Amino acid sequence: MTAPCELCQHAGGIEWYRDDRLRVVLVQGEEGRRFPGFIRVVWNAHVREMTNLLPADRSYLMMTVCKVEQALRDVLNPTKINLASLGNVTPHLHWHVIPRWDSDSHFPAPVWAQAVRDGQVQVSAGQIEQLKTAVLSLLSGA
Amino acid sequence: MTAPCELCQHAGGIEWYRDDRLRVVLVQGEEGRRFPGFIRVVWNAHVREMTNLLPADRSYLMMTVCKVEQALRDVLNPTKINLASLGNVTPHLHWHVIPRWDSDSHFPAPVWAQAVRDGQVQVSAGQIEQLKTAVLSLLSGA
Repeated sequence: MTAPCELCQHAGGIEWYRDDRLRVVLVQGEEGRRFPGFIRVVWNAHVREMTNLLPADRSYLMMTVCKVEQALRDVLNPTKINLASLGNVTPHLHWHVIPRWDSDSHFPAPVWAQAVRDGQVQVSAGQIEQLKTAVLSLLSGA
Repeated sequence: MTAPCELCQHAGGIEWYRDDRLRVVLVQGEEGRRFPGFIRVVWNAHVREMTNLLPADRSYLMMTVCKVEQALRDVLNPTKINLASLGNVTPHLHWHVIPRWDSDSHFPAPVWAQAVRDGQVQVSAGQIEQLKTAVLSLLSGA
């Protein structure tokens, strides 16, 4: 018996936005603590790869990823943005949009490598609230 | 003194395609051996993030990434495709397009995590040649 898909059963984080095609969620847990503002953009339908989407849907998904990237840069001004769609464990199309700081626990290594220091990035609850406002503003086209 | 940018100085792999905006290269070395068919799509200009590009250029870059993904699926039929734009070490916009097999050295972990087995994926030189033909065909719109 195949295990049910995690992203078909759960949002994958705190849901900030959802429409008929995708959702934008704030990542929680250890990853969310290490990389505050780590956001996932999850395609709602259970689709495996980008090339399983129609070109117009791929474009909509990446435009959304880029709006999230822009909001992260505008509000948190991190050292770098990391974008990734892996899905080896959960083959349900989703994008990681990860703000990186040169003081974070893994920089400059990828977040999936071993930690290189005891990094603690300081981002306040107020900044996360500003980030949410910026994401929603860009997504609404306002 | 800042070190010169690696991707401004070198192609980043064996160059299969180049136009005025981007290039497509086959990754060499240890990564190329572990994940045969690992391809990078590199923006030619020294640009840091996706959101530093005009929307039309972002779209062109991702369409190219998706054509490479399609060629990898068509020719090598891997278990999964991984897409990532990190650039923490080399902040010059480039996309990793990585074919993954459930027998590879890291699966299902990301390629940047610790290896989990002595994986040796068998892909022949002939298949890599077919992959190149498929990539060039999709890029030319043929």
